[in-house]
Formats: sequence, C-alpha cells, structure tokens
Amino acid sequence: MPTARKHFDLSGSNVAARASMLAEDDGVTRRSLLRTSGVAVVSSAVGAIIGGCSRPSTAIAGDAPPPIKLPRLLASTESETHEIEAPLPPEQRLGFAIVGLGRLSIEQILPAFAQTKLCRPVALVSGHRGKAEQVASRYGVAPKQIYDYQSFERLADNEQVQAVYIVLPNSMHAEYSERASKAGKHVLCEKPMAVSSAECQRMIEAAKSAGKKLMIAYRLQYEPHHRRLIALSRSGALGKLKGLLASNGQNQGDPQQWRLKRALAGGGALPDVGIYCLNAARYLTGEEPILVSALTHSTPNDPRFSEVEEQIDFSLQFPSGFTASCTSSYGMHNSKMLRLHGERGWAQMSPAFPYQGLSLEVSTKHPDSEAEVVEQLKIPPKDHFALELDHFARCIMTGREPHTPGQEGLQDVKLIEALYQSAKERRVVELPAVAGSDPFRGPAPG
Amino acid sequence: MPTARKHFDLSGSNVAARASMLAEDDGVTRRSLLRTSGVAVVSSAVGAIIGGCSRPSTAIAGDAPPPIKLPRLLASTESETHEIEAPLPPEQRLGFAIVGLGRLSIEQILPAFAQTKLCRPVALVSGHRGKAEQVASRYGVAPKQIYDYQSFERLADNEQVQAVYIVLPNSMHAEYSERASKAGKHVLCEKPMAVSSAECQRMIEAAKSAGKKLMIAYRLQYEPHHRRLIALSRSGALGKLKGLLASNGQNQGDPQQWRLKRALAGGGALPDVGIYCLNAARYLTGEEPILVSALTHSTPNDPRFSEVEEQIDFSLQFPSGFTASCTSSYGMHNSKMLRLHGERGWAQMSPAFPYQGLSLEVSTKHPDSEAEVVEQLKIPPKDHFALELDHFARCIMTGREPHTPGQEGLQDVKLIEALYQSAKERRVVELPAVAGSDPFRGPAPG
Amino acid sequence: MPTARKHFDLSGSNVAARASMLAEDDGVTRRSLLRTSGVAVVSSAVGAIIGGCSRPSTAIAGDAPPPIKLPRLLASTESETHEIEAPLPPEQRLGFAIVGLGRLSIEQILPAFAQTKLCRPVALVSGHRGKAEQVASRYGVAPKQIYDYQSFERLADNEQVQAVYIVLPNSMHAEYSERASKAGKHVLCEKPMAVSSAECQRMIEAAKSAGKKLMIAYRLQYEPHHRRLIALSRSGALGKLKGLLASNGQNQGDPQQWRLKRALAGGGALPDVGIYCLNAARYLTGEEPILVSALTHSTPNDPRFSEVEEQIDFSLQFPSGFTASCTSSYGMHNSKMLRLHGERGWAQMSPAFPYQGLSLEVSTKHPDSEAEVVEQLKIPPKDHFALELDHFARCIMTGREPHTPGQEGLQDVKLIEALYQSAKERRVVELPAVAGSDPFRGPAPG
Amino acid sequence: MPTARKHFDLSGSNVAARASMLAEDDGVTRRSLLRTSGVAVVSSAVGAIIGGCSRPSTAIAGDAPPPIKLPRLLASTESETHEIEAPLPPEQRLGFAIVGLGRLSIEQILPAFAQTKLCRPVALVSGHRGKAEQVASRYGVAPKQIYDYQSFERLADNEQVQAVYIVLPNSMHAEYSERASKAGKHVLCEKPMAVSSAECQRMIEAAKSAGKKLMIAYRLQYEPHHRRLIALSRSGALGKLKGLLASNGQNQGDPQQWRLKRALAGGGALPDVGIYCLNAARYLTGEEPILVSALTHSTPNDPRFSEVEEQIDFSLQFPSGFTASCTSSYGMHNSKMLRLHGERGWAQMSPAFPYQGLSLEVSTKHPDSEAEVVEQLKIPPKDHFALELDHFARCIMTGREPHTPGQEGLQDVKLIEALYQSAKERRVVELPAVAGSDPFRGPAPG
Repeated sequence: MPTARKHFDLSGSNVAARASMLAEDDGVTRRSLLRTSGVAVVSSAVGAIIGGCSRPSTAIAGDAPPPIKLPRLLASTESETHEIEAPLPPEQRLGFAIVGLGRLSIEQILPAFAQTKLCRPVALVSGHRGKAEQVASRYGVAPKQIYDYQSFERLADNEQVQAVYIVLPNSMHAEYSERASKAGKHVLCEKPMAVSSAECQRMIEAAKSAGKKLMIAYRLQYEPHHRRLIALSRSGALGKLKGLLASNGQNQGDPQQWRLKRALAGGGALPDVGIYCLNAARYLTGEEPILVSALTHSTPNDPRFSEVEEQIDFSLQFPSGFTASCTSSYGMHNSKMLRLHGERGWAQMSPAFPYQGLSLEVSTKHPDSEAEVVEQLKIPPKDHFALELDHFARCIMTGREPHTPGQEGLQDVKLIEALYQSAKERRVVELPAVAGSDPFRGPAPG
Repeated sequence: MPTARKHFDLSGSNVAARASMLAEDDGVTRRSLLRTSGVAVVSSAVGAIIGGCSRPSTAIAGDAPPPIKLPRLLASTESETHEIEAPLPPEQRLGFAIVGLGRLSIEQILPAFAQTKLCRPVALVSGHRGKAEQVASRYGVAPKQIYDYQSFERLADNEQVQAVYIVLPNSMHAEYSERASKAGKHVLCEKPMAVSSAECQRMIEAAKSAGKKLMIAYRLQYEPHHRRLIALSRSGALGKLKGLLASNGQNQGDPQQWRLKRALAGGGALPDVGIYCLNAARYLTGEEPILVSALTHSTPNDPRFSEVEEQIDFSLQFPSGFTASCTSSYGMHNSKMLRLHGERGWAQMSPAFPYQGLSLEVSTKHPDSEAEVVEQLKIPPKDHFALELDHFARCIMTGREPHTPGQEGLQDVKLIEALYQSAKERRVVELPAVAGSDPFRGPAPG
Repeated sequence: MPTARKHFDLSGSNVAARASMLAEDDGVTRRSLLRTSGVAVVSSAVGAIIGGCSRPSTAIAGDAPPPIKLPRLLASTESETHEIEAPLPPEQRLGFAIVGLGRLSIEQILPAFAQTKLCRPVALVSGHRGKAEQVASRYGVAPKQIYDYQSFERLADNEQVQAVYIVLPNSMHAEYSERASKAGKHVLCEKPMAVSSAECQRMIEAAKSAGKKLMIAYRLQYEPHHRRLIALSRSGALGKLKGLLASNGQNQGDPQQWRLKRALAGGGALPDVGIYCLNAARYLTGEEPILVSALTHSTPNDPRFSEVEEQIDFSLQFPSGFTASCTSSYGMHNSKMLRLHGERGWAQMSPAFPYQGLSLEVSTKHPDSEAEVVEQLKIPPKDHFALELDHFARCIMTGREPHTPGQEGLQDVKLIEALYQSAKERRVVELPAVAGSDPFRGPAPG
Repeated sequence: MPTARKHFDLSGSNVAARASMLAEDDGVTRRSLLRTSGVAVVSSAVGAIIGGCSRPSTAIAGDAPPPIKLPRLLASTESETHEIEAPLPPEQRLGFAIVGLGRLSIEQILPAFAQTKLCRPVALVSGHRGKAEQVASRYGVAPKQIYDYQSFERLADNEQVQAVYIVLPNSMHAEYSERASKAGKHVLCEKPMAVSSAECQRMIEAAKSAGKKLMIAYRLQYEPHHRRLIALSRSGALGKLKGLLASNGQNQGDPQQWRLKRALAGGGALPDVGIYCLNAARYLTGEEPILVSALTHSTPNDPRFSEVEEQIDFSLQFPSGFTASCTSSYGMHNSKMLRLHGERGWAQMSPAFPYQGLSLEVSTKHPDSEAEVVEQLKIPPKDHFALELDHFARCIMTGREPHTPGQEGLQDVKLIEALYQSAKERRVVELPAVAGSDPFRGPAPG
C-alpha cells in the first residue's frame, strides 16, 4: 500500500495531533455514563463494550505540539463544547472518487466532505460530463479528475485517489465495487450492498484479493444517537431486550426513477428504506434472526409499483425470543421511527432514520416511585456521512477493519432474500442459527 | 321492558334536559372541524359520518325549563369550557349490578360511576362477602344488594337493576352473560368477549332471545382522542390509509394471577392487551382483515408463561392493502402506542391504550412549504369507563343498538383464533372477505 | 363545635379506614423519591419536609376491618395503580354550602364534589332562585337547602352545613366570609382573598373570633405536579434557586363581566390570574419578596379595560436574590407557564395553572456526560378542587390548621397592593423583610 | 474598492450561478406559506414583508450553464431537500481576517466557514503566535497571514483580506473596528457592539468615513427559526402582539475569564447573553422601547460576580403597549427560551438562543373547535455563523447595506445603558420615542 503509506506517514511534527485524531473518537459514548432508570452504568464498561479499540493507542505517538487548551467557560454543571478535533490539512487527507452523481451524492455526500476531518473529494465518476463539470467546480475538483464509466479503470493510476465511494443504483454496486478493488482502491459502498447475496460474496472476494478495505455505508451505525442507543441496549438499563417496533416509509414520486425499476433496484421499499429497520434490529441486539415473516402489498394500477413492492410488513425473531416488527413503504407519508422494548423500559427514536433531526427518548419507571419518567437526551447532531467517511479513512490510515464491512452488508441482503421468500410463500422462513456478529465487541467505530 | 319504561318515563318537568342528555353527546366531533394538513373538513360532514344519529332528535322533547346559560368569559379565540351536561338525579339513573370485584372493578369501574350522568351502581356480585360489604359501603350500596354466584339468578327479581356489567375472568364471560340475559338484564361485558367464538355466538343468541342489549366494553371507542382519530382517518386528512404500527405491552407480575392461566384467560397477552391493537386496526379502517400472520414467544422457565404466550407479534392485511403490524407482550415494559400511516400524513397516539394520559399528534407536510409540521391536539380527557357506561345507558333508555355490540366482540375473538392458528402453523392464515362493520356509518356512540 | 363533633365522631366500626383517610394523603411525595440530576433525595427527608404531619398518626386508630388488598398485577418495574382510598359514605361527609353560582361553581366546583372522599354539597346560596333550583336538582340538593343573600344568616341553624365555600366576586369575599364565620361555619374562600389587605385582616379576625377555620382556595398548592415541584425545589436537585419566569394570561371576552369592573374585582389581570404567578414564586421559594416592580398597560379604547389593567409585567426580588419575572394579561392568548431556574437545572410546567393538563419537566446536565437531559415526569392528574376540598375537610375533622390559611391570602393581597403602587409611581417598592411562611415546614397539605 | 471589484467581477461564464447565489436566499420564508391558526398567509405578501429585495434580480444575469436539475424523488406531499446552492470556488470567495482566537473563534466561527458558500478565512490576528500557527494549519491559512495586534494595520496591504471579523473582548471592539475601517476593510463585529454608545457612534463614523460596511454579528437574525418567527409575528397569525417572556442564562465557570471583568466586558450577563432577549424583543416587534425597568443581583462573595452583575431581570415597554419581561443570568443553569404572546396565539422557542437545537412551536385555538393545538414546525437547522457570514459577503459583493448594521448594535447598547441606570436608581427609565428600525421593511437578510 505504498500510496497510502506515503500519504499517511506518521513521522513529522504533527504526529501527536494526528495520533489523537486517528484514535477512537467515540465522544458521546466513552465520555458519558448512561443515565437511565437509575441504573448506574460504569463508564469504563461502556467504553469497553462499544468504544473499545483493540489496538493500544500508544502504538501511534510522537512529540507534536500540545493541543489548544481553553479554560472552562461554564460551570461543571453545564454542557460545554470541547475543543474540536483538528482537521487534517487538505493535502494530508484521504482522497475519494465519488462514483455516481445522483441526488444523494450532490445533496448529501459531497457537501458532507466539508465536515470531515480526514477526507476530501478528489475525483468524480459520472456518465454526464456536463453535470460532472458543474459539480467539480463547486468542490475544487480539477476537470482532469472527472471520469466516466468507460475510463473507470484509469483510476488505478490516480495516486490522489485512495478510495472510491460507490453511490450508484443498487444493481451496479457489485460491478463497480469489484472494478474498484481490482484498480487497487478501498471501497465504500452504499446500502444495500448489492441485489443478491451472490454478488455480495463476489464483492467481498474482490476486496480481499486486492488487499483493500470494503465498507458498507451504514451511516447510522456511526451516528451519535444510534450509538447511544446501542450502548443503552447493551447496558442493561432497559432490562432484557424484548422487541423492536420500527417504520421506515416515505411516499415516492416520479415513477420513472431507478428505485422503482426492479432491474436497477433489486426490490422496492425493503432494500432501500426497510433495510434500516432490519439493520437496526441486528445492531441493537447483536443477534441474528432465525425466523422471518413478511406480507407485501402494492396498490393495483399505481404506475410506481408495477415492478417492485410498495409496502412490506415483516417480523424477525431472534434466538433470545426478541422479535422485531417493522413496516416499510414507498406509498406512505414520511414515517421513520423505532421503539426498542425492554422488560424494564423502552427507548424511542422519532425520527430514527433521516439525515437529520434525530431524537432519542427513554421511558422507565422511576425505581423509587410509581411515576413513569420519559427522558429526552439532548445529543448534539453531527453529519452522518462525515462520520462514516472519517471512520473509513481512519480504518485505512491505521489498518483496522471497518465497523461495517462487507459481511455486514451481506447478512442484510440474505435477510432481504428470506423476507421476499416468506412473502411469496406466505409462510415463516427459518434461518440457520449463526453467531451474531455483534460488531460492538470488535473494533469500535471511530 | 316494563322496568326500564317505568324508570325512563319521558314525561314530566325535566324532559327537555333529559332529552338533550339522551341525544348524541359527540362533543368533540360534532363541534369541531378537523384541522390537519390544510384539509378543511366540513363540520357537518364529519357530523354525518361519525356523530350522526339515525333518530330525529325531535322524537324526544318537552317543555322543560331552559338550560343554564352562562355569558362567554373568554374571547372567541380562546378555548372555553361549556356548560356541563346536567347529570340525572340518582333515582332516575340506570341501575347496574357489577359482577366480579377484582382490581378493574374496584379501581376503575366503581369510581367511574361518579363521573357518569346516567348510571349508578346498585348491586354487587362477588364470591367474597366480606370484600363485597366493604366495597358496598363505599358506594352506598345496601347490604341486601350483594349477591354471590349461586344467588345470581335472584337478580331477575331486582327491579333496581336494569343492567349487569360483567368484569369476571374471560372464561366466565359467556356463562354469566347468558345467565344475565336470561334474568332479563341488559349486559355490558368486558373484553375479550369470551374465550371462543362459539361462546360469543351463544352470548349473542341469549341476549337476542331475551330481547335485551348486549354490549362489549371497548372503552376506547367512546374516548375523545380515539374518536377524533377515527374522524381524522375518515376525513381524508391523512390521505389514503396505508398501515398501522401498534404496541400494547406491559410486564406482568404475580404468576398466580388468573390472566396467566389458560383455563381462565383463554390466552396470554393477545386477548388481554393485544386485542386493543387488533380492535384499533378495525375501527380505524372500517375494514375486516383477510390475511393474518403471527409469531409468538414465551421465555423458557419463566413461571408466568408456562400456560400462555408472553409475546405475540402479528400482522393483519385488509382488502384495501392496509396492513397493521402489532406487538403485544406480557413481558415488556409498559408500551402502549399506535401510529396510523396515511399517504399524506400520520397520526400517533403515545400512549394510546391506558386509562388516562392519552395523547394525539398528527404529522404532515405543510401544503405550501417544504416544512413538516407536527400538531399536538389538546383534547380534554374524560373517564373512559364513564363514557362507555353512559353510552350503554343511553342506548337502553332510547332503544338504540350499542355502538360495540356482541358482533364487534365476536369478530375480535375470531381474529384471535386465526392469529393463534397462524402462530402454530407458521403460515399466513386467510380469512373470508366480509364487509367491514364500520360502526361509524351506523348510529354513533353517544 | 358540637355539630362537627357529632358528624366526625371517631368511635365506631369504621374508624381505622377513616383514620387512614384523615391522615396525610401525600401520595406522590411520600411514596416517591425525587429523581433528577442523579441527586438521590432520601424519601424520608422529603417526607419530613413536605409531607410531614405534626400529629402522630397513632393518635387516631381503631379496630376497623382490614382494607382491601389486591395482589400486584404488574412487575415492580411497572407503574401500578393502588387501592383507592375509600370514600366516606355520603351521610358521614362534611357538608358544604356553596355561596355563588357562577361559572366556577357550576363548571368546576360542584362537579368536583363527586371526586372528593370527604365532602358533599348540601346547600346553595344564590340570588337567582330559578338557577339555584336547576343546579340543586342535579346534585340532589333539596329545595329547602337553597338560600339567598338575605337569608344567608339562616345557615347558622342548618346542622348539615359545616362549611361554606365562597365563590363570589372578589369584593364580596370579605362580607360573606365574615357573615359565615359569625354564623359558626368554617370558611373556604376563593382567591384573591379580598380586594384590600384591611378586608383580609377582618376576615382573619372574624374566623378567629368564631373559633372556625378559614382557608383560601389556592388549589394548586394541593395539586400533585406543583407539590412535586415544591419538593424538587426543596431537595436541592436544581441547586440553589435563582429565579422564576412565569406567565398567566388569557384573552377576556364579555366586557360586562364582573371581573372587568373595578368595584367588583378590585383590579384586572393581576388579582385574578397574575396571583398564580405571585403565589407560586412564594411557595416555590418559601421566601417573601423585599423588592417589587411593575409595569401595567391597557389598550386604549378597549371597552374591556376601561376600569382595570389589561396586562401587568412584574418582578419580585427575594432576600436570597431569587427574582421572579412574571407577566399576566387579560388580552393575550391563553398562556400559563412557569420555569423555575436553579443553578444546576430548571423545571418547567407548561401549562402550569389551568384546571387540567398540567405538565412538569426538568432539565439538567447529566452528571457524568456533557449531554443535557430533559425529563418529563408522568404524574397522574387529579381534580384540583377535590383535593383542596378534601384537605379542608380533613383539617376540620382533625382540628388542624389549613395549609393555606387566611395569612397566606393576606400576603398575596399585600403584594398586589405594592405592585399597583410600583406601577403607579414608576419605581421599585421596597417591602419589609418578613420570615417566609414556608408552609411546607409546618403541617403538610393532606 | 478595486480589490473587491476584481474579486467579484460579475462577467464571465459562471455569472448566472453567482447571480442566483448573490440574490436573496430566504429559503424558508419565501418558499413557505405560514401555517398557523388557519390564517392563510399569502406567500407573496410574506415575501414582500420579510424576504423582499429592493434590487431587481434581473440586474445581475448572464449566460451561465443551467443549474443541476434533479427529478423529484418524493411525492409532492413529502418534504424534499432541494438542490443546494452551489458554493463559490475558494479563490472567488470573500477573504476574512479573524481577529481574536478565543473559544468562539476556534469552536464556532472558523469551523463555520466550511459551511459558507461565499467566504473563506485567509488571515488570523492573535496575540499568541503559537496558538495562531496551530489554528492556521487546520484551515490552510498560510503562516505569513498571521498578524498580531501591533502589526494589525499591515492588513491594509493584504489584498486577500476584504473583511475582518472582530471576535475580541467587548472593550476592544471599538478600537479594532475603527482600525480595521481605517485599513480599508469591511467590518463584521461580534455583539455587544461596544461597551458604550459613544464607542458605537465612533465605529459607525469610522466605517462611514472609510466607505466600508459595518455589520454587527446578530447571528439569530439570519437563522431560519427566528426568521420564521419574525414572519409569523408580522403575518397576524398570532393576532396583535402583546408581550414577550424570555430567558437567557447559563452558569459561568472560571472567575478569571474576561467576561467577568468589568473593564473588558463592560457588564455581566446583560451585554453578553441578556442582549439576545433585548434584541429579540426589538426584531420581533419592529418597535423601540419607551420604558425600561431592571432589577439586578449578584451573590455576595461569589468571586465570579465581584465586578459585574450575576443576574438581571428587566422589562421593556414599547409604544404599542407590548411589554417584554426577561431574565438573564450568569449564575443559573442553561436556560435559553422565549415565548411571544399575541392576542390569538403564542409562539415559543425552547431553546431559542444557543448555537444549535432551536425549536419553534405555535399554540392557538383551532378556529372551528374548542380545542387548542400546538404545532411544532420542523425547520432544517443551518449553521448560524455561516448564514451571517454569507449575508455579509453578499452585501459586500452586491453593494447592499447589511441587515444588522452599526445602528442596530448601537440601539442595543443604548438600551443596556438605560437598563443599568434603572437598576441603579430603582425606577423606570423613560426613553424618547423613536421609529422602530423594523429592518424587515428594508432589504431582507440574504
């Protein structure tokens, strides 16, 4: 990995600052005790569970100048912002090629780079030269850094590009992920990982063969509200976890969009938005389902739903008995929520899945009274894509495995296949018991 | 019905007040326009849909003194309480015998009589004479008005008792409902109606043969938040209805309680609390399900769940495609919510099902901007049991059919049977298409 | 006090139940620990502070039958309703004469009797015979129990009436309170106590001379949300108290109503609704103000405000430095809130002052993280007037001093006078330092 | 202004995009109808009131390539993000020198540049060379672009710097603002503008003499929630405005910080945080106060408050009778809220004043029912500093007067002086009636 090594050489005067930056940034979770239901959750335990990093932080250190220390403006009983982590100078950042310039790239991902500390966009891949040029000028991407799908392999020669972010229609994920791996690039790929589990397997193989990273862009697994909820679910504050109720629906517009074409999308609401409920059920429990059941529906004669399902209502049962009941739709008004049920309390995010405005509240009985309490946790928002991008960059710079690797995406695609089978056969589909990956036992997202 | 006639003779000086009282009391719905999403719902239309009464109100009228008129204290832009409906003097009210003195009777139903306008408790039926005497003294029920299960038929001779309210373990509903009908009494029976659809049929027959009313105590169908939500769902303000997400769970205590014994309860969480989700899906849509699917779970070795299910996650699909996904549990922390999804908005009640503290909010996009708005409707709370009791009394006094008759309870019990079958056979169970009763097209609850 | 003694004879078989009922019913506060900001407030301490009763409860005991015990339906981690306190049979209750049949009596106070355990309405005093008869028939009050203002003194001979509740225009409070005391009745008087401090003094004297109780109807001091907030403010959970921000405004209607006539009301928004802010500042701190400042305003040519102020904005500074800033208006939309500021947290009630729908939430920083938390306390609502009535009855039955005696009302009237002086003279008015009554150090409300 | 002209030459191929960017970006307000209380506010009227721009937009146009058009992903009943305004390439942006590297610069302002479209930091001014170098490296500012207070005037020769942002202790604002004007730079200065009205006057003169812009950094006047509230207050949706209740308090830490030194800060809570309440009262009404009254308090022996006030409670009365009652404190827990009262409704922001997490809700009675409704408006958050910076850049590029010029800052400082006088003299201070600047009648913020 000579390119990366060159870029990320840890020698030099700015080493300590960078070391700190490359270490886990688990702000919310490491610093905080959970506070719910009178359960005192020991900070270090939470750190161990979800923030822990398997590499000793002393592995990277140096004689860099001390960070900027600011006196405490406010009393210790007040929240106070902390010195922000210093961003890397542009020339030291991980260079990305963005593959696909649809709405997601233009409205979310490209603007998010300004909020990363370790990443920068250096190349664009698009079939529309004019549009690419317009976008390139906004972000200071040089015209020569614009590629099309024919010239894609030429990225291999571009030393400024260490990683590609694949933001294409679902059916193209596998091809371009494989091509990028073969070109010697690390791959960050949007969800769903691909339109079949076979494709996912090939993508994993390709990255492995190339000796490069493959990460699926599950942004919410890097987002502070979800990470707090994960910590809460692991802490025992809710008691034994019993179930999840979740919805992810929105009312789709233009019938011509690729998301409504089976050949491009691989399915309807389920792989696009329902996957958030599916993935949440898995990361909140750390288990993998053994029984799945689904009912689908498409409004007859609605041109949007002639190829893919409009709505799917599904249940997943896990080995512990935990059961998730979810609804996902392309025909209902924007509704994106989850409620996680435990035997001693519940936690709700409403909304849970959009790009901004997430909220987390926890309901329990106060241990010493008969009164119920609902706590609203005020967690400072961060850009989801920026967090995900910096995690990927940090993994590449430090040689760690991403928190949401190809296997994580593959498992969701397998479950999507099982859910469609259940809906078709009108019966419960049983899945072999597999150990939950419980990614929070392994290297934590940084 | 000589007894009732005597009691409810409409002649006399207080006729107009009573006429007003016996007419529909659809306070919230008749008076109010719905206000959501910029959809102007014409008040009279809503009245016609959900508040309408098939009997002309002129049928009962008289020369009573005018009601108390109070000048408006506040500006028209303020909410203002209105003159309360005058309660009937005690001796003119409908007399009830309460059958069963468990927690529900003691903590909810008997206290609720003080908030009714048309009802009073005049007799108690209990197997525990001492407890019954204690309770009787609280409510001014004479000792001679205490019955036990052997002497139950003697109620037939008690002219003060026009109706019985059956608040027994589920498996006893059918027997005591039939015995009460045969004793010439109107029957108000707690939900679930019975532990089998065959029992329900017998109860319906018995009431019919006796020429007496039979009503199932679905208190929420008389509650203002639910009635507002029903009106909203009918008004089109949410667009076409697409689905329901609902939970009704609580963490059960004493393993010896009858609710955990199959022989007494007929099932676990489903018939006791899950039935609220089931019933809501039906009254919110006015449709009847054609596909049902369920997964159950009981924690192994938990003494509470050796006979009945701990948790059931189920989906109901209706002819329009509307799908309800629900979870109900006896092992999770108190969680009682619903979210009704439409194509243009959603409405949420959280909580939706407890005896008090209900909340209703509606989320839509503002028609003229890109902003989402969540409206919280501030609806004055009322006692659910008092509303249900007065509705039943009003139906008896005016000869109308209750809004939630035996057929309403029977349909839920049929669905419970189908859900248990689905869980057992691990497959979707299909049900014959039947016309939704849509009770809101018929006489409205008063 | 022969009448009362006869009615409240503590001998007899039902003594224990009544003893329990007459003891402090500080449900929320005694049973509950406060829970805020990780401050563990010891239950017994809170009991001592706000729930304590100076009389040993063993003073009244007997051989009554045991109360009804119900097995716990739910797990200890769930809220559960408790056996309700048994109401006294009607004939053993304290009999009230209601003086004045305006909106407050008809819509709030008379209906509230059905929710008391110790009180009943037995007589009405009104200048409108026809209206009084209508009301009397609703509540089973016999026609011979209707009095007018000329025959008021005949109440002295009515043994069924032990107490009068004065619900007249403010300027009539003093006269009828004095006449009632002279007639040998206990007096419960609506707020404001009177239209001058001199009148208040005379009322106190009259009750004292008669050896009867005098209580001002500050309903919120008996209400569970306010009592919880008082306990919170005393517990230290918010740190040292620093200030209060409060509004009590509504938009008044009919310009002819007595509340807008100086001769009848004694002032405008301040004595009617602003008094709630004023009183709250005092009971939340237990201090008495030493500096007051006010600005008033009335919209020119608005017929409603030709005699009394429309709006008053005022500040009260207390010896500790605590400062309350309040607004009260008869010309603004319904806004009734308070926020209590401490050095470590704040508590907000929004709304704080209406008859129903109160809400309490607490904001603090979580001690172990940088995150803010807002806790919403779910406190079961109770009828404010019923709580106040039962407290008064309990005081009479047990010989204790009411929690809000005449002195409490007098102090508010003194402050109202000082605020009007400040507004008139456009300067701060200083008041002599007096010991805060801090009623919560004395007998607690029961 | 040759430098600026060179930089902002409107000829060239990218003109149309820039023209669009430089035109009013009043996203929320121009696009949206207000929606409250059933009042249909005509979009164009709102535009005219608050979004209107006095320059015809056709004045700047060209033959630039068309903007990127994306098909509508979602139905029209859903919120959808819109194509983001294209940022200017770095080299075309307005260059800023940041003067003062305290917490505000480091944690808020410098990171905010990444979210501007028109600005970039090109120079730093600090007395701490080492710290400045650290910060410079983070943002790609060259070492030669670091100045100290002695070399400040050398900025005059720096063509890359068109504007300075003064983020110094309050008492230094005047000096460095004047020096910057004299150096030929546009000045953006933090609030409070200065520590005396005489200083403010001098600053205004200096900018005027130099022919450069002077803007005070009232970030909230550029923030979408506040702009929506301003539009709401102007629309009549709340009826006639009656008053404001507001708090801005926090619990200060280190007693050595400059904010607690009179010589540096000019006062305590009032000029630092109370000014937000003051300014809001003015921009929400468009009026200027005529009566002010204040009470201050400092905890004795608290080392933080030996020089400046801890807390100030103040009222402002405006010609219309509108009265604002506010509390501001350095000794209370973080509480930053406002409630704006109208005769037909109120609007609340809680919180109202921090850097993020703002919330806006509106309470009214539904016109056709007795029910109250509280609407929560979901307004996408934006970085306050980025909005303010882009507005200033836009004004410079197009030659318009900033929305919050020196006069706006001067008026607040005059009011601060009057409030301190009132507190000292314990009386109401009268101010001459002046026409409200009502900035929303003039050029709107862009």
